[in-house]
Parts: sequence; C-alpha cells; structure tokens
Amino acid sequence: MTNRLDEFQAYRTKMNERVSEIDHLGIKRFYNLDTSAYKDGALDGRVKELLGLVASMVLRCNDCIDYHIIQCVDAGWTDEEIIDAFNVALVVGGSIVVPHFRHAVESLDLYRQNGKNSN
Amino acid sequence: MTNRLDEFQAYRTKMNERVSEIDHLGIKRFYNLDTSAYKDGALDGRVKELLGLVASMVLRCNDCIDYHIIQCVDAGWTDEEIIDAFNVALVVGGSIVVPHFRHAVESLDLYRQNGKNSN
Amino acid sequence: MTNRLDEFQAYRTKMNERVSEIDHLGIKRFYNLDTSAYKDGALDGRVKELLGLVASMVLRCNDCIDYHIIQCVDAGWTDEEIIDAFNVALVVGGSIVVPHFRHAVESLDLYRQNGKNSN
Amino acid sequence: MTNRLDEFQAYRTKMNERVSEIDHLGIKRFYNLDTSAYKDGALDGRVKELLGLVASMVLRCNDCIDYHIIQCVDAGWTDEEIIDAFNVALVVGGSIVVPHFRHAVESLDLYRQNGKNSN
Amino acid sequence: MTNRLDEFQAYRTKMNERVSEIDHLGIKRFYNLDTSAYKDGALDGRVKELLGLVASMVLRCNDCIDYHIIQCVDAGWTDEEIIDAFNVALVVGGSIVVPHFRHAVESLDLYRQNGKNSN
Amino acid sequence: MTNRLDEFQAYRTKMNERVSEIDHLGIKRFYNLDTSAYKDGALDGRVKELLGLVASMVLRCNDCIDYHIIQCVDAGWTDEEIIDAFNVALVVGGSIVVPHFRHAVESLDLYRQNGKNSN
Repeated sequence: MTNRLDEFQAYRTKMNERVSEIDHLGIKRFYNLDTSAYKDGALDGRVKELLGLVASMVLRCNDCIDYHIIQCVDAGWTDEEIIDAFNVALVVGGSIVVPHFRHAVESLDLYRQNGKNSN
Repeated sequence: MTNRLDEFQAYRTKMNERVSEIDHLGIKRFYNLDTSAYKDGALDGRVKELLGLVASMVLRCNDCIDYHIIQCVDAGWTDEEIIDAFNVALVVGGSIVVPHFRHAVESLDLYRQNGKNSN
Repeated sequence: MTNRLDEFQAYRTKMNERVSEIDHLGIKRFYNLDTSAYKDGALDGRVKELLGLVASMVLRCNDCIDYHIIQCVDAGWTDEEIIDAFNVALVVGGSIVVPHFRHAVESLDLYRQNGKNSN
Repeated sequence: MTNRLDEFQAYRTKMNERVSEIDHLGIKRFYNLDTSAYKDGALDGRVKELLGLVASMVLRCNDCIDYHIIQCVDAGWTDEEIIDAFNVALVVGGSIVVPHFRHAVESLDLYRQNGKNSN
Repeated sequence: MTNRLDEFQAYRTKMNERVSEIDHLGIKRFYNLDTSAYKDGALDGRVKELLGLVASMVLRCNDCIDYHIIQCVDAGWTDEEIIDAFNVALVVGGSIVVPHFRHAVESLDLYRQNGKNSN
Repeated sequence: MTNRLDEFQAYRTKMNERVSEIDHLGIKRFYNLDTSAYKDGALDGRVKELLGLVASMVLRCNDCIDYHIIQCVDAGWTDEEIIDAFNVALVVGGSIVVPHFRHAVESLDLYRQNGKNSN
C-alpha cells in the first residue's frame, strides 16, 4: 500500500527525469551542487543532512522536509535526535512552523512504517 | 579597540536587560525556551548550535548569525567546519544569502581576532 | 458532510495527540507558550486572535490562517471585521498573499456554514 | 479531461467572484492595482509577466507560479525562455525553490498540452 | 538632540518626496492604498495599526516596525498593550524575531522619550 | 567623495576576495553558477538582470537590490523602465517592500550621480 511519502518520492523522481530531459546547463549544475553539499567534507554528510532538515523546516517547505527526513533516517539519526532537531526549528521559526512540524512527525512515522526502524 | 561584533554583544546585553525589566511572563518564558533549545539533549548542544547557525543564515538575520557564530566557535567547531555549514545554507537559501554569507565570514574572522583561535 | 475545514481540524487533533505522546519537554513548553499568547492580558484575547490571523496571512500559512479564522469567529468578530483585517494583510504582504486570501475567504464561508453564524 | 491547472483556474475564478461579492473597497482597488501592474508601461507587459513569474518562484507560491506561467505562455515566451527565467529563480532562491521548480515545469507542460504550443 | 527614530522619519519623508516626484501612477496608487488600509472601517484604525505592527514584526522589517510603533503610540495604545502584541509576534515568528523585538523595545522607549508619554 | 553605494562595492569586493582565499569548492561553484545565470542564454542577460532585481526586491535584500541596480543601469535600462520593474515588485511583495523601494530609488539616484546617466 502506498502512502503520501511514496507518492512524493515517485513524483520527485518523475519530475527530476523530466528536468533532466530539459538539459539546461545552469539547472543541471545547480542540481549537482545541491547533491554535493551533503557529501562528507569538513563536516560529515550525516550532520549536513540534519542541517538541511532544520533549514527546510524554518523555511517551511514540506517536500524539502520529507526529503531530508528520509536522508536523516537513512544516515542513522534516531527519532529522538530528529525530534530534538525539530525543536530547534520550532524555537527559531515560531508557531508558524507548527503545521510543518506536524507534517514532519507524520512523515517520520510513515518512513519508519515503510521498514526503516528507529535505532 | 572595539569592532562591530563587540558592539553587537554590548547592545544585545543592554537590550536584554531592558527586556528583563519589562517583565512580561510570556516573553520571559520564550527567552528561557530559546536558551534551553541549545542545551545537550538527544542531540549534543554543539550540534544544535550549528543547526541554529544554518537556520539563521537561510532566514537571513545577521544578528542571529553573529550570535550563533560566537556559540559555534566557543563550542569548538573549526573554521573549516563552520564554512562547510555556510555552504549548506548557501545552497538551500540561494544567492539572496550571499550578502549574509559575506557578513558571516567577516564575523568569524573578527571573533577569531578577538582571541578565539581556530583549532 | 465533512468539508476541508473539518478535515483540517481532525488531522490537527490527531497529530497534536501524536506530538503529545513524543513527550519532548521543549516542544510541550512551546505548545503551552503558543496557547498562552492568545489569552487575555494587557490586550484582550480576541484582539490577539486577530493579530494571529494577520500574522498567519502575511506569512502565508493556510493551516495557521484556518486555525485563527475559527478562533476569530468564535471570539465574536464579524465577517466585515475579519475581511477588513484581511485587507491589512493583503496590503502589507502584497499580491503573493492573494491565493491565501482566497483560501481564507472560503474557510470563513465554510466555518459559517458549519453553523457559526456571522453576528 | 481536466488537469490540476484547469482546476486551479476554475477555483481561482469562483473565489474571485466570491471576493467581488464581498465588495470591500480596499480589496477591489488592490485587485485593480495588481492587474494594472502587468499592463504595457515603460516596460512591455510581456517582460513584466516574466518578472511576476520569477518573483512568484523565489517567494515560493505555486498558485502564483501557475498564474504567471499561463500569462507568460499567452504573451508568447517560449519554453526555453521560461526555463531560463526559472534558472534565475533557482539561483536566487536556492534549493528550497526546487519543489516549486518541479511544479512549474509540470504546469508548463500541462498548459502546452492544453493546446498552447511552444513557439 | 536627534536619535535614530528622528533620523528614520526624516529619511522616510525625504525619500517619499523623491518618490512623489517620480510620479508613477501605479506606485502612487499603492501608496494611497497603503494609507487607506489603516483608516477606520469595519475595524477601528487603531486596531489596524496594531495589526500592521505585528505583521511588520513577523516579517522582520525594522523600518516598518518603527513606523507602526509611532502610529500605535499616537493611537493611544499603552506600552503594556504594545508589548503584549510583541509577544504574539515573538511566538508566531520565533527566535529569529528576537533582534527585531529588541529593536522595537528600543524604538518604543525612544519615542516615549521624544515626549510621547505612555498612558 | 564616496557614497554608500561606493562603500557597498568596496566591501563586496574585499569580502569576495576573502571568500576566494577560503577556497571551498562548493562555494566557488556556487559563485560561478550565480555569475553564469545572468549571461546571455535563451533570454538576454539584460532581461535576466531585471529578473534578478525584482527577485531581490520581493525578497527584501538591500545589498542584492543595489548590486542588480548597478547591473541594470550598466545593461542600459532607463530609470523609467527600472521604476516600472520596482512597481511590479511593490505589488507582488506589498508594503513591507516599501522601505527597500525607498532604498532602491536612492541607490538608483546615487549611481546616476556617479556618472551613469539615464538614457
């Protein structure tokens, strides 16, 4: 059975393929830069995924939040650690972030139900 | 000799004292909640300072950036690590973040010159 | 028959219960602070609900708008007064607010249809 | 067969009629001002539609993006030109814009499929 | 002796005169619409000034905050009421608003020192 | 005699040199991508500078506005055309943009006084 997280991932993949067909050099480079920003560097990639998650939450982008939750879980962050990062985002961004926080909690639950158990 | 970082800290202290005099219960609780969010919890406080720094940069608040740079340096993050966090903020937030990134680089340099050597 | 406002309220309740289970001290305090901010104080609670509504509209958060519309209607503000507050939000926030304004007008109509008659 | 772009246009028309009934002088003037801003002036209307599109994308409003894509296509901008404008929006606004960019690419495709062929 | 609030008002007046010289019809209408939005209507003008203040604070614009503080004091709101409105803005907008809140507290003090006594 | 526009350009140059010394690959690529986005492509570079200006104004970044005003004047846009673009930004972004609009009008005047006559 598919849930909204699976649908998001399928849509994201489909549209990124469509973007790839468009073949705009600047856009392709932007995509590469975005991917590279989360690779191990002076900071570990897993810390950078957490940075991406909090940035997405204070900027209130549900798709970005979902993407980084998946990355954070895959990088081995526990639910407790991810929730503690959400708390920083709530305090920085205020109650306007609350609906995105609720969405994020549901996304985290959905991804764990997809077989990604919390450590 | 004072620099703009010293002036920011002096102004921040002066105004927080003024806010304290006002004695509004909700505002006092908000200040406490803000302070608590960066204490050790499921995540270490030092990781949360880095989260606060990136959140401040994508939301483009120079005072918030300066505050978290000071906290990050005091928490032991090296210049290379802080710059790598800046890169995540630049990619997430785009070129509109660049003036704040320049400000942040200067703030980091100023704070190191104040005697906080990079590790 | 349920409408999107009923669905929002049901989802909000369900997820707030889930958040409550998570039992993160900072997040619980944030929720309490948020609730307290709209209680009678130097300003009446009903004025503060209107402030929350306009803040939600200029920050362009549909869920926050819906929540505060419900609170404003329950606090006794008429449609004419709420629409006049929307106008302030439109002027401050610009045409980027228009889709949220349309959403808000529909939400106000839906809530009145749910039996909350305008005074 | 209707698609999400047709639905957006139908909803927009319906709600703008509802707004018109409300008959708030400030809001009517705001609507007029918004319409006038894209008419030929010192700049051609078609250039201003492109400005509105990029502004909508960096401010991350999908409905505004869809509206201005329709206007830009109707004004004769080609897909290549519109995509090049998207690239400016991506660079200015950063990766937080990417989900809106994907949405915009799909909207452009949908509108062309509705019979608005690229020049 | 002039303070930063006097300087802001002088600069604002000077530049608005310059804008007036430019004589762009859309811009003149926008200015008129902005002024009209705070006049008595379904809501009293003084309530709308408070709405404008909170909107300015969550959108984090110091000049807009200063302008609306002056208007709110002139409309007869007490310091306690204005601070209670600031609290709503802090909770909605989060800690990223804190530097603007400090600025606002100082602006309120400066304006009272200019001879606008509370109560 | 230097003005604030000259100071901005000197600071920008100095800090970009400092950034260059830091030699972070991702950041260097981001800078290159940013520069490339405004080169002639499917759209002329001069149209893209106008897009960058309006994007900067609705996102309310004075440094970004100043940078793009300089680029737009150098690209041959007249004052009337630039002001007409400002009007689009005002309508999209609302009165919260007004202080940045005043700043932009002054910047345009200052740059013309530096010897860049309007066509």
